[in-house]
Amino acid sequence: MAYYSTPLDSAFHALSDPTRRAVISRLAEGEASVTMLAEPFNMALPSFAQHLKVLEASGLIASEKRGRTRWCWLERARFDEAADWMAAERQRWSERLDRLELYLDTTQNDEG
Amino acid sequence: MAYYSTPLDSAFHALSDPTRRAVISRLAEGEASVTMLAEPFNMALPSFAQHLKVLEASGLIASEKRGRTRWCWLERARFDEAADWMAAERQRWSERLDRLELYLDTTQNDEG
Repeated sequence: MAYYSTPLDSAFHALSDPTRRAVISRLAEGEASVTMLAEPFNMALPSFAQHLKVLEASGLIASEKRGRTRWCWLERARFDEAADWMAAERQRWSERLDRLELYLDTTQNDEG
Repeated sequence: MAYYSTPLDSAFHALSDPTRRAVISRLAEGEASVTMLAEPFNMALPSFAQHLKVLEASGLIASEKRGRTRWCWLERARFDEAADWMAAERQRWSERLDRLELYLDTTQNDEG
């Protein structure tokens, strides 16, 4: 497994797999046991457990054992960090396009 | 290099590296030549070119050669696809927490 040096690196790496994104989507609805999470996937449990390990190492999810059952939930802080990065880039991009549009409008008015 | 099967997989994989995220941030300010993009990084050009290749394969950026210079720019559609996925998950999560809060308020009122 590759070495990911920053929290954002490992968060985006964790999101780069459809099974792991599906787990995130499920946990957005509320906490779930490992058995509940694995149920929709036609996957050997060790492979599925490896996906959970990547998610937990990234800080996107956390888990704890209660009795015989391990429960997982989303960790909002790490998810927000990644989502905020994307939202900020999109914002800067939109602002640039707005400025460009304004510039082009001004140029056209000067010519008109 | 790992095989990424869906556009979202390869977009998130492309974002899992600080150099590649810095390139995205730079391109959010407007298109740039490969030389301009490489300038802030203390990195051999072939290594940097590999990062651009991953970004271009993911569909997050595109490039074309004009004269002797290769220019790169962001591809909004793929970036939006990844950002929209994150925003939608965050939205579902917030809605669940709102419902939970409403439920707890109702429960408390019933008890009060």
